[in-house]
Order: sequence, then C-alpha cells, then structure tokens
Amino acid sequence: MIFQYKYLLKITKEIFKACGTPEPEAGIVADVLVSSNLMGLDSHGVIRIPQYVRMVQKGDIIPDSPLSILKETPNTAIVDGGWNFGPVSGIRGMEVAIEKAKANSIGCVTVRNCNHAGRLGAYPQLAAEENLIGMAVCSSFGGGHYVCPWGGREGRLATNPIAFAVPTEGNPILIDVSTSVVSEGKIRVMRDGGKELPEGWVLDANGKPSTNPKDFYGPPMGVILPLGGKQGYKGYAFSMIVEILGTVLLNEGYEHDEVQARGNGLWLMALDITAFISHEQFKSRINEMVTYLKSSKTAHGFDEVTIPGEIDFRLMARRKEEGVPMEDETWRQIEEVANELGVRP
Amino acid sequence: MIFQYKYLLKITKEIFKACGTPEPEAGIVADVLVSSNLMGLDSHGVIRIPQYVRMVQKGDIIPDSPLSILKETPNTAIVDGGWNFGPVSGIRGMEVAIEKAKANSIGCVTVRNCNHAGRLGAYPQLAAEENLIGMAVCSSFGGGHYVCPWGGREGRLATNPIAFAVPTEGNPILIDVSTSVVSEGKIRVMRDGGKELPEGWVLDANGKPSTNPKDFYGPPMGVILPLGGKQGYKGYAFSMIVEILGTVLLNEGYEHDEVQARGNGLWLMALDITAFISHEQFKSRINEMVTYLKSSKTAHGFDEVTIPGEIDFRLMARRKEEGVPMEDETWRQIEEVANELGVRP
Repeated sequence: MIFQYKYLLKITKEIFKACGTPEPEAGIVADVLVSSNLMGLDSHGVIRIPQYVRMVQKGDIIPDSPLSILKETPNTAIVDGGWNFGPVSGIRGMEVAIEKAKANSIGCVTVRNCNHAGRLGAYPQLAAEENLIGMAVCSSFGGGHYVCPWGGREGRLATNPIAFAVPTEGNPILIDVSTSVVSEGKIRVMRDGGKELPEGWVLDANGKPSTNPKDFYGPPMGVILPLGGKQGYKGYAFSMIVEILGTVLLNEGYEHDEVQARGNGLWLMALDITAFISHEQFKSRINEMVTYLKSSKTAHGFDEVTIPGEIDFRLMARRKEEGVPMEDETWRQIEEVANELGVRP
Repeated sequence: MIFQYKYLLKITKEIFKACGTPEPEAGIVADVLVSSNLMGLDSHGVIRIPQYVRMVQKGDIIPDSPLSILKETPNTAIVDGGWNFGPVSGIRGMEVAIEKAKANSIGCVTVRNCNHAGRLGAYPQLAAEENLIGMAVCSSFGGGHYVCPWGGREGRLATNPIAFAVPTEGNPILIDVSTSVVSEGKIRVMRDGGKELPEGWVLDANGKPSTNPKDFYGPPMGVILPLGGKQGYKGYAFSMIVEILGTVLLNEGYEHDEVQARGNGLWLMALDITAFISHEQFKSRINEMVTYLKSSKTAHGFDEVTIPGEIDFRLMARRKEEGVPMEDETWRQIEEVANELGVRP
C-alpha cells in the first residue's frame, strides 16, 4: 500500500490525540515517526504507533507529562522527560540545548526518564535547522543489550547510535549510525525471510561466529558484534563513548526495575558555529568539502560518492512526491488501533 | 635496545632545548612522545625526534612561538598554535578548554596553525586528569589523505581519529581510535616485512580490493578503506564528524600551499561532570559499568574483556618498570641528531 505523507501525519496525530496526547506533543510524535518513513527508516516510523498506544494505555508513556529541568547552568541542563513519548522528550531536550547554544555558544543536555527515542538523527537535525551544529548519543539501560563488548560473548551494550548534523545551503549533512555492525531488527527480518546472515554480524551463545540467525536468537541467545570486524575494538570504543555520556552521566546503572529498563539515555549538544566562523564561511567550506569528496572516482560496484544524509533526503523528496509504501500488515495494525480509539482512518 | 623511560624523557627534553625550545615546551613534547612509547604507540613516540628537529631547523616548527587566542567567549576559543610543536599546541589548547570548563561547565576549542599533533589521546587524557570529560578530534588538511570516502577510490580523508577520556578511581578510560580500518604506518610495516595485508584494508588504484601492499603504494596509489567493512559507510560518517569539526569549523579548505598542508586540525572539548552529577556518583557508576562489561564471558580466541585504555596503561606500568624497547636504527637516528646538537646521549 502507498500513502500520502500528509495523510500519515494527520492520522498519526489524531490517533495520539485520541489517547490523551495534547495537540503540540501529538504533532511532534507524528513528525518524528513520519520523517523516519520518508527517509526509509521504516522500522522507526509509523509501525511504532500500535506499540506507543499500548504503552500509553498501560501507563508507560504519560502523554501529558510536562518536561521539567532538574538542574541547570547557562550551558547545561538535566532534563526530566517525565516518561512522555521519547520523541517529545528528545525534541524538548534539544530545544533546551539550542536555546543555551544561542545564548551562550554551547548547550549540553542529558535527558532522563525518556521512553524509546526513535530516530536519533531527528534531534541534531533540529539544531542544524537552527544553523547550529547538533550532536546526540543514545544508550539503552537495562533493555536491548544485544551487543557484546570486544572480546566478550554476552550482550552488554545496546546498538548505541551516534548522530550529528550541520547546516548547509541545502539539506543538512545528517549522520545517524549505530556503533554495532547491525541492528537486531535487521537480523529479525533475515530470520523471518529464511536467509543466512552475512559473516561478521553475530556470535552464537558459545562465542563462535555464525551466519545462522537462529544461533543469535537461541535460546541460549548469541550476540551482535560491535562495528569494525577485526577492528571491532574501535566500534566497541565508540559504543563506550555513548554508554558513558548516555548512561553513566545520567547516573544510571545496570540493575533496574521494569520501569527504568525501558529507558533510553540521551545526551544532546548544540554548538553555535559563529563562536568560531560565520555561517557564510561555514557553508562555503562545507560546499568545498562536499565537492572535494565527490570528486573522487568511484570504487568497483559504486556509481557515486554520497554525503551522509544525502540518500535519506533524496528518498524523502521522492516519497513526499510518490507516497510512502507500507506493508499491509503494518497498516492493518494501525487501522485496528485507530478504530479502537474511534479515529476514522 | 631497552631504555629507562626517565632517561628518554631527559634526553628528549635536552635535544629540543638544544634546538631552541624553551624549558616548559620541551618538557611537554618529551612527555607526549615518551608517553606514546610507554603505551606501545611507538610510531608516535621518540621515533619522531629526528623529524621534529629537522622541522625546527627548516622553520616549519617554531619552538618559541607563543600560543595566542584569536577569538573567545566564556565557553569557546579559537587558539592559534603559531606553528609551535603540535603537542605544545594540543596541550595548551586543551588547557584553555579545561579552564573554561572549570569556570563555565564546558570549554570547546579549535586549534589552528598546528603541526603534527602526535598521540591524540594525550589531550582528553589531560582533561580526565583534571576530573573532566575530555574529547578531541584531529583532521589533516592537505596532507595524508589516504582514506577514500565510502563508494570512492581516491584518497580524500586522513585517518581522522576520535579520542575521549573520563576519570575513574584509577587510570582514565581512554579512547583513541582512527575512523579508518588501519593507519598508513601499519601498511608500510607489512610491506617492508614482505607480508600480505588482511582483506578489507585497501583498494588498488582501480578501486578493487587487494591484499598486496604494493597495490596501495602504486604508483598509481590506492586507498585505505574507512572503518567497518561492508558497513564502511559508518566509518565514513564518523570520519566526516572529524572532518567538519577539525577542518570546516577551522575555516580550512582543500587547496593548500605547502605550509598549510602540513597542518593538523584540532577540535577539543572539556565538560564539567558536576554540571550533571557529583564526581563520586560518576566514578561509582563508571565502576558499575566496568564490572558489568567485564562480567561477560569471553568469545572464542579471547581470554578477557578489557576497557579502552586498560591495555595501554598496563603496558605503561610494565615499561616504566622494565624499560622501553627500541629498534637499533631508531636509536641511531636519535643519537645522530643529539650529537649534531651537542647533546651527550
């Protein structure tokens, strides 16, 4: 099935309003979810609607919970997301960082009590749209520890992504990558499709490399490897930056009750470019960098050199024009939730 | 040959003093070089002495050049390294960031006109020793562009390392990794030893994977791949964070005369932990994280899970005790320079 993105925005917003979410927050959640679909990150898109609605009904998401600031300085803040929707906590947290960066060159914010944050790139992207440099990392304490430490064979880390965005004369350069080889979701898709995994993705429960998705799911469960293959100690190192900023600096640990275990830990930063050079100089130098990178001849099997975010924004433009494709089953589940809430899809 | 590290510190300092370096700067350079040897990063250690001395003699390094601040806010500074030794510019730049972080929660500094910065981890390590979180990235504009962009087959990026350090109850956690698969230096060693390269390190000049070091050196020259193998777009993305902060934000471009082309671009950050949680809480949570990571059973072929920096500090302790090993040829070249300068080794 194919949907106009404006329709998806509207229906998503209405569904969340119908389960008690105030207007602006419902709009934020709809924006973050639908932008994921537009960029081809369907696993972080509207497929999450049923999950989020169930979490609201269970009380795990508190859709009218205010964001509060637990501690702040002119440059820093500890933001309490109050278990609102993850995207609401993330966007509001980045708004605090942006405000501080505009007033005092840099804003650096940790977000506690934050539900599933969704597409991490959405937060630095917001900073880039305000002509700032944006950075974000996201850890998961308690849940989703599918990734082993380098040299280990038991899950101790989440996929721990790092995101980064800067303004250009066009769309931002947008980096949003995990520090593991692959996400658990991709392995699930390969398993369900009866496919072998590429080498170097997972170890079985005994710590031996495997290409069989069943060796990952067990039981007993295997692990996903950190990014980097034989240089996986580098992916592990990047993952630890995320873990320290996203978990340790939030004063979170590794023994949790059920509530804490569902949390994402966010560390967000916004940096004022003009503390260093003018916006014009920056954008002109970015142009120069992009031209230089793209001037490289292509490798065997490639037909262009792209800049991070370029393919995502290209797909976004196409999907805004041609519509967003969706699996029938995904839409069936969204429709079911909508009907339950008396929203006419 | 084996040398006591205190002797190496002394002789290094004397050599640089003998070629016109003031006392404290000579000490900084000696510290950064010898600490590299102690940690096993011999390619960034005293082997650099002859190169640095020749650069002083040629006027490329200006050993009594003062560091100046071109622009600053309470949280940021553009530091002009004045083409002093790279380690002097790096340490002095981080000292500015540390001062700002202590006074105003965060300090963020770019360092321009900076020679070869050496071991990047030395700079965030300084922040960690002051109980702060330290971060550093290092780009090279003009020179050393051995790494291709994802999908490309021509060198457009340096190995672009990222370093990060935090205080613990013992040695800092110290991350210092490049965003490419490997450094050019390691390929040189394999070539000189007549060895095949592992798969996934380089492409030949036609953009095809090769395991022959000669295909990398050409001519025509091949390229080193970004970190990540089939997920090399992730290493490329991390490299671009370094490129944007280390080159673009310094208002540097890609067409250089000889002077500019030798430069490293540094972006340094120090963050006050107590803006978020107390030092005691932080160190206790770090302990908890380390215990949790190390509690993972080991994978096939490993006998322990280590934390970034752990092996380096372990080697440092051993080399402080047992001495620093050095190739005869390396020492011969250092001795030659020392004799020339009238320093008695």
